[in-house]
Amino acid sequence: MADSLLLRRPALGRHLGPVAAADARLASRYSNRLRAGYPARPEDLRSCGLIVLHTDTAGLARLLELLRRIGPWRGAHFVLLHAELDSSALDEFRAAGARVCSAAPAPAPSRDLVVVEGDRSALRRATAWLEDAHLRCLELAPGSKPLFLVGAQMPGWLLIPVFDAAFQTLKAAGLSPAEARRMLRFLGDAAVREFAAHGRRGWEDPAAAPRAAVTAAARKALMEASPRLGRFEEAMLAAVAEFYGGTAGQRPEGESRVLRVRLSIP
Amino acid sequence: MADSLLLRRPALGRHLGPVAAADARLASRYSNRLRAGYPARPEDLRSCGLIVLHTDTAGLARLLELLRRIGPWRGAHFVLLHAELDSSALDEFRAAGARVCSAAPAPAPSRDLVVVEGDRSALRRATAWLEDAHLRCLELAPGSKPLFLVGAQMPGWLLIPVFDAAFQTLKAAGLSPAEARRMLRFLGDAAVREFAAHGRRGWEDPAAAPRAAVTAAARKALMEASPRLGRFEEAMLAAVAEFYGGTAGQRPEGESRVLRVRLSIP
Repeated sequence: MADSLLLRRPALGRHLGPVAAADARLASRYSNRLRAGYPARPEDLRSCGLIVLHTDTAGLARLLELLRRIGPWRGAHFVLLHAELDSSALDEFRAAGARVCSAAPAPAPSRDLVVVEGDRSALRRATAWLEDAHLRCLELAPGSKPLFLVGAQMPGWLLIPVFDAAFQTLKAAGLSPAEARRMLRFLGDAAVREFAAHGRRGWEDPAAAPRAAVTAAARKALMEASPRLGRFEEAMLAAVAEFYGGTAGQRPEGESRVLRVRLSIP
Repeated sequence: MADSLLLRRPALGRHLGPVAAADARLASRYSNRLRAGYPARPEDLRSCGLIVLHTDTAGLARLLELLRRIGPWRGAHFVLLHAELDSSALDEFRAAGARVCSAAPAPAPSRDLVVVEGDRSALRRATAWLEDAHLRCLELAPGSKPLFLVGAQMPGWLLIPVFDAAFQTLKAAGLSPAEARRMLRFLGDAAVREFAAHGRRGWEDPAAAPRAAVTAAARKALMEASPRLGRFEEAMLAAVAEFYGGTAGQRPEGESRVLRVRLSIP
């Protein structure tokens, strides 16, 4: 429960009523920990206007079993607080007439952002509750929480290895670790600003004339100095060329082939 | 000459003497433009303690021809100002007893950084001249200017496409362009800071337990929503897995194979 939105935003506790869990002792512990609501039996949740579900992925099956036992849930409203699971985890209650949605913290400088998705009327109640605690809610398109996750995690997966490869290359060129790190910090900041201001138009195509010959020679030098770095850089640039070359409908197939050929090291 | 270090740092003109070019008219124009030195015949360069060469790539052959005509250059010191060419462009004069180096502007917030490489005694004179104009000089390892170029350009080649793919993914998940851009600016800044502080250790491996199943499902969703984005992300992550898995001598081959398998979408 350490990373819970409920703990991070105590204001969310203001409207909590009955707090239920697998047993009375746990319910009491959760309520104490949250400094909100009061311990209650699971059956007491049935009277709530919005039922807030909190579980880790491993505990989901047990939570669903508990809810099944104390149903029916026709007309009830659920919000599942979970970084990855979405409202489809509650499909069986949706099918039985409940309204369900999910909410998850999203990356933002002031940690006040939440992404939500799910059924209209559940979303209405959940966002009113979240916004009352000064959280901003972004609504995702139906069924697209996995897409959101991959988009938000892609920078973490890919940017560090790019910095790392450039770092190793600059060190191989004779820069000290501190100098290479300082230069990459500047180049990274510049790329972030460039993308924020101009989007894809900020991209420098290494295969573009008039620099194609120079960059090809530089990439060849990298491959000779470190085949591992050279292969990484080659594979990454091939993926980029495929990505931008293959903009279906925007560039003719012929042009995309040319782009790929020009990108390969002679 | 518009991007010339000489124009960008007028203080570099303080010690200029004779300014020569292909003909007297050009020499006069350059000297006027630089507001430094005085127009002279190419022969007059022979008396200089450090001969500063400035040319674009296309003009190099003509410059070398001019220098050949007015040699010999035994004991002369040359610095070639060029973003990409290095001192090997002057190898024929080096072989004839001259000392040669090159200098090029390098990325830095205050635009005061120069990378240099070449012969010891030419470097000594060139850096004294550059530092007198408050430029900081970083010396590259011999023959490694191409490596430096590829390291300094890699972020420009690769970061924007990564941001762009994440941007398109977040929009596909329902975020507005402004919201997606704001989130990526935050994530990009975080990755830059993370790398500056912790290097490669800041990397989040998408194949690492306990999140592997969730990220695999999210990547599968991306592939279904947009095969183009999915293929890009898959190719980039495969390159990263190969790069980190193939750290020769640090991880056994078996482990690197496992990493690659775990990264593939089930």
